[in-house]
Amino acid sequence: MSEAAVAIVDDDPVLETDFAKEMVRQMRAIDSYGSYDDWSVAKILMPFVLTKQMRREIPIVGDPDEVTMARVKVYYNAIASMIEARSGLMAVPMVHLSHEGFGRALITVGKLVVMDKTLRDVHRFGFPELAKMKEEADKLLTKAAELIDAFPEVAAL
Amino acid sequence: MSEAAVAIVDDDPVLETDFAKEMVRQMRAIDSYGSYDDWSVAKILMPFVLTKQMRREIPIVGDPDEVTMARVKVYYNAIASMIEARSGLMAVPMVHLSHEGFGRALITVGKLVVMDKTLRDVHRFGFPELAKMKEEADKLLTKAAELIDAFPEVAAL
Repeated sequence: MSEAAVAIVDDDPVLETDFAKEMVRQMRAIDSYGSYDDWSVAKILMPFVLTKQMRREIPIVGDPDEVTMARVKVYYNAIASMIEARSGLMAVPMVHLSHEGFGRALITVGKLVVMDKTLRDVHRFGFPELAKMKEEADKLLTKAAELIDAFPEVAAL
Repeated sequence: MSEAAVAIVDDDPVLETDFAKEMVRQMRAIDSYGSYDDWSVAKILMPFVLTKQMRREIPIVGDPDEVTMARVKVYYNAIASMIEARSGLMAVPMVHLSHEGFGRALITVGKLVVMDKTLRDVHRFGFPELAKMKEEADKLLTKAAELIDAFPEVAAL
């Protein structure tokens, strides 16, 4: 786990954002045995960062394992949770894998699809750095908020 | 397979409907080895009918097997295909199972969720008779059409 120190530093400002806090909350939610209890926030989020070097070491084609799948769900659960906090409406995530790491992640609010993403290479799920993860999440959140604003009736169904 | 004759008769008028034809088309689509090639339409749709007696013989709790899952997908693919034919818009089905046969089936058209169904007891998926299957499908199709009519902008996104 020596890459951890390289990938995320403990005083990364991103760790102070609501999104990172939600990610940590979601990670703790699936940590049934309390293994993360005395882990730093940086260490808990470490597996979401895949540097180029780390990515190169993972085969190009592969089936995602349970742990990777759980991480993908944590990520979209966190996004859904943020959408919920901002809109006050229930946001339901759904992650579906078809084969060899291909799939679709969807978040619905009422009858409105506020996020719809094709997943590829799920077995190599990760972001080059923490800031990138937050950047992508922010884009998804902005898009979702715009859709809810544009079609409040559908979101309220 | 003696129940087949009991469950669906070859001259059942439902077999002549567009929905039954679509179901057969979807079943043939997953029949990679052409096993159904010389089967009657009634025989192909037979597994979708679970009489009370047949249902009683299946354990109450269980994990759905691949074949049952494939059937559930055929059913929702057929619904999506009918929505597409009627609306002229692409309808995308997504069936997700969480555990022990619980899950969610969703059909989206653009950014609109036109069908959203909680799945239970998927290992016992089936309808008491063919007419019931068509009846439920018709309900889902009507609901979907109403939603598309009400929110054409969202469906076109």
